[in-house]
This record gives sequence, C-alpha cells and structure tokens, in this order.
Amino acid sequence: MLKIGIAGYGNLARGVECALRSCADMQLCAVFTRRDPSCVKILTEAVPVLPLDSITEWKDHLDVLLLCGGSASDLPAMTPLLAQHFNVVDSFDTHARIPEHFSAVQRAAEGSGHIAVISAGWDPGLFSLNRLYASAILPNSSTYTFWGRGVSQGHSDAVRRIPGVLDCRQYTIPVPQAIDSVRSGHAPQLTTRQKHTRHCFVVAAPDADLHRIEEQIKTMPNYFADYDTTVTFITQQELQRDHAGLPHGGHVINTGATGWNGEHKQRIEYTLELDSNPEFTASVLVSCARAAMRMAGRGCKGCYTMLDIAPADLSPLSREELMASLL
Amino acid sequence: MLKIGIAGYGNLARGVECALRSCADMQLCAVFTRRDPSCVKILTEAVPVLPLDSITEWKDHLDVLLLCGGSASDLPAMTPLLAQHFNVVDSFDTHARIPEHFSAVQRAAEGSGHIAVISAGWDPGLFSLNRLYASAILPNSSTYTFWGRGVSQGHSDAVRRIPGVLDCRQYTIPVPQAIDSVRSGHAPQLTTRQKHTRHCFVVAAPDADLHRIEEQIKTMPNYFADYDTTVTFITQQELQRDHAGLPHGGHVINTGATGWNGEHKQRIEYTLELDSNPEFTASVLVSCARAAMRMAGRGCKGCYTMLDIAPADLSPLSREELMASLL
Repeated sequence: MLKIGIAGYGNLARGVECALRSCADMQLCAVFTRRDPSCVKILTEAVPVLPLDSITEWKDHLDVLLLCGGSASDLPAMTPLLAQHFNVVDSFDTHARIPEHFSAVQRAAEGSGHIAVISAGWDPGLFSLNRLYASAILPNSSTYTFWGRGVSQGHSDAVRRIPGVLDCRQYTIPVPQAIDSVRSGHAPQLTTRQKHTRHCFVVAAPDADLHRIEEQIKTMPNYFADYDTTVTFITQQELQRDHAGLPHGGHVINTGATGWNGEHKQRIEYTLELDSNPEFTASVLVSCARAAMRMAGRGCKGCYTMLDIAPADLSPLSREELMASLL
Repeated sequence: MLKIGIAGYGNLARGVECALRSCADMQLCAVFTRRDPSCVKILTEAVPVLPLDSITEWKDHLDVLLLCGGSASDLPAMTPLLAQHFNVVDSFDTHARIPEHFSAVQRAAEGSGHIAVISAGWDPGLFSLNRLYASAILPNSSTYTFWGRGVSQGHSDAVRRIPGVLDCRQYTIPVPQAIDSVRSGHAPQLTTRQKHTRHCFVVAAPDADLHRIEEQIKTMPNYFADYDTTVTFITQQELQRDHAGLPHGGHVINTGATGWNGEHKQRIEYTLELDSNPEFTASVLVSCARAAMRMAGRGCKGCYTMLDIAPADLSPLSREELMASLL
C-alpha cells in the first residue's frame, strides 16, 4: 500500500483525492495546506489536514507527495524544496520554463536521493507522449496539437483582471476546418488564428462599459490579440448554471508518409474529451506516483518526466498480467 | 550510426528498408534470406543479400537485427535462436501466444546477454500502449479496440485455402453504430458480431460453384461464423486494380468517469489510419531498434515489449531536445 500525501488543496488536489479512491494500491495519509487547516474540509474521512510548514515531520511516513500547487507561483519553488525530503510528482505546465524547472528539481532530487516526476498531466503529459511516439515512428511527419473545446483557466483569469469584469469563463475552441485540413494529410501551414477561436462568457459590473471591456479583451496581447474572439455578456446566475464545469480536451494529430518515395499516407491521432480537466490531470498524477515508487525501488533518483517512464510502471498490474491481458 | 540487419525479406522487410531511409542515425548493413540470395532484389543499393544460414558470421557486425518473419511459423523459432547472437526486434502478433514466446526469448536473450524487443508494431504495440495508459489512468474505465477498415492477411489467407478460390482480399470493418455507442460513454456490452463486419473480395476459378464458396466462407469457424460477412466475386484484374494496397488502422477507445461519485465522464481515443500496414509496422520496429540499443547501452538484457520501453528511448532526439521541443 503506497502512502500518499497531498500538498495544496484546490481543484487538482480534490481530483487526486477522488482518483486515489479508485486505486486499491494507494492510501491518502495526509493533506498539507498553507491555509488554516481547521478551515479546510476535505472529502476523505479520517485523514488529517496539516499546516504545510510542518510537512518535513512526515518525511519518513509518506512514499510519494503529490504537489497540487500552481505552475505560476507555487511549483517553481515548492517542487525543488520538497524534493529534498520526499519523492514528489507535480503538474508544472508552463512549457517554456520546463527545462529550467527540470534543472532545479534535478539538483534537489539527486542531492537527496529522491525521485521527482515533473510536468505530469495531459499537456504536458499524455499529449507530449503522443507527439513523441508519432514523431519517433514517422520521422518526416507533421505533428499538430489542437486544444478544446475547453475552459482555459489562465485566459479566464486574464479577463477577470480587466476593471469592470466580475467573472469570466473562457473557452478555447479548435477550428473544425483546420482539423479537417490536417486530417487530410496535406500538412497545412496554419497560423495561430486559423487553428483556434476563443469565446469569453463575461459577467460585468452593473455600471461597466461593455464596449470598452470587449475591446480590452479582443486586443489583449499574447492572450487574445492573435485569435478571433467572441465576447458574450451573461449574468452571474447564467455563468453558474451553464459554465460551472471545467471541461477540456483536444487532439494530437500526426500525418506522415512511408514507402520508398513517401507513397503511403499514415495518420496517427490522439483525442481527449474530458468533462473535468483537473480530475483527469489528477488521475495522471496518481498513476505517476505509482511509477515513481516502482522506479525508486529500482534505485532511480533525480528528476523525470512522463517521457522517461516505462508505461508498464504506471499500471497496478504486473508485467505478466499486462502481457496476458492487454498487450 | 546504428548498424542494422534484416532477417527475412517480404512486405515487412521492405517497409523496414523504407523506414531506415528516414533515419539519419541508422544504416542498413545486410539482408538475410532463406531464398537463393541471387534471386532477391532489394531496394537499397550496395547492401548485401546473404543466406540466412550464414547469419552468425555477422554477430559482431550488427547492432540490431530486425526479424521480419511471420508469427505463425517463423518467429516462434527464429527469435529465440537469433537472440542468442544478436540484439533483436520482432513483430510477433499472435496475442494468445505472447507469454509463451516471451519466455522462450527471455531465456535466450538473458543467457546470451542480448536484448530482445518482441511484439512491436501497432497491435500488439501502439494499441497495447494506449490500452495500458488509459486503464492505468482511469482504473474503472472500459477499453474497446476496433480494427479497420483494413485488410486482414490472416483472413484473406483463410479464404484462399477454400477450393475454387484463386485469390481474396478480406476487409475488417468496424460497425459505425458500435463506435458511436462506445464514444457516448455508455460502456455497452458488444458481441463480436456487433463490433465488426467482414467483406471478402474473391476471385473464383472459372468453373467454381460460387454459392458453395460463399457458404464455406460465411460459416468458417473462428474466422467468419461470428461475423456478418459480405462476399463479392470479382475478377483478378479488379482485385489488382482496386485492392492492391494493404491499408489498416482502427481505434482504441477508453471511457470512464472521475469525481467523488463518478460524476464526470472522460474519454480517451487513439486512432490509426494507415495506407500501408506493413510499412507502418516496420517504422515502429525501427524505432524499437533504436530503443533496444539505448537500453543495451545502459546494461539491459533479456526480453522486453513496448510496454517496458521508456518513450524517450524511441526518439533520435536527446532528453534535452525532447524537453525543449515537444514536452
């Protein structure tokens, strides 16, 4: 029975709690929070909620610690720090900063003799794996990633920072014609605008200038300026009723050709359709915790990503069971 | 530069030759055949074609030998035999006999200190990986595999053995309603007949009893009796014109739920659409040859499947390049 701890208690951590419930080989032992523990109510009975600054007292009592902080401000410091005392798994997802995060975690985990799996989830994570498998098998092929239809929390947050905006849900939506064009095998060159559209459902303050808010959204650099964006103003009640979920998903599509003269088209496509992005990401993290312990048992230490994990290590089944049941 | 040999020279081996052409880190060094080498014309210039029974003379001159024999009669003996002298990769695809094949190859490869990757390809292979990833991440989910539309060589061969049949191409076709039902997340119980249909394009001898042939096909146990099968008689010219290719593909679909009470549906789907089944399978084998050498370099020996291979080992890119470019 693997003894699991959770650091941080938001949507992702609640997803981990739910995922652990389906895993007969793992047990949630403690949740650590920066908030006042007496104010944090978790789903699992009889599991203690403890202050994060007491976490090192648990260093000999947990097999793996799942880090459920955010990539922007929590994980860059938290993962290297906690990898000094625990085997850890995080979901660091700021793609451009992964090499830097890897180096910091690698130093900490190698130094302490622990194992750290970073950037687990679906992108980075399962989507990365599919980009890798497809491009390794078809070296001269083209790989495309489409996200959505799904809620982007970063984009929702960006809109919420605009004065006069009370709340927002932003959906990222792949352009169907772009997907069709990629699937056809023509390897089109697609601009950012051609691949995805964005749709913001915005709750504005009663006295706000809606025209100004819409302009500020549509022209926001990095987030919206390069996309065709639709802004729809709704009430807080409508937002709660129609946009309470956190769905997401997308496609990794790879098209290439084989044959002496590239005469045969080949297409590989991976699709996720997720009702709950944080719960699915959490389920990936939990399987990576299992792999981390398997790898630690073989003497591995240092920092890894899902690209380094032998798939069999993610499963509760033995090698013999896997060979008989699903190979 | 990895030095690669090919044992056997049929469709799969020609696919390997084509795939190696796209790999800057590998070089085809020799092809071994049971036929008279002077009668075997290969695609690559200046590569020797040699008798299979001289192969052990090459034991110190090849990094990996790709075994391109058939699963029914070649590989069960060939893979254990050659794993005594070479690092080998095969595409053994008789699912029910994989554990037995694994044991035989494991003994040979461990004894000789070589590495063997068996059952590489797409099913077993990439489809197995997707069944594994999906079921490890969503433990209480349902996994479905649909094959086709594609040519099944085993079924085509079975029809060709019927007296009066000169030639046949058999297509396996997934039932669209079954796929829709699975995608909906209802986890339907599907019979063999509900999942796939079969379509045989048959060239009959001029004097053959077509009605008798059709009956013999449709009632053939294991191959056709459990399916709705369509038989279409065509001429040899039509077969060559319209059915010369070996397309295949399919879907691995996994549907499950997350949340404290399973309230959120999650769907994972993997699709292959292949113009050439043997060329795609060959491309997978070639990437496994690269992984085998990486693993051998770290001291691994014995028998492995793709479930045991860390994905990064399949790619020509370094860990740092992968992290920067596709994680």
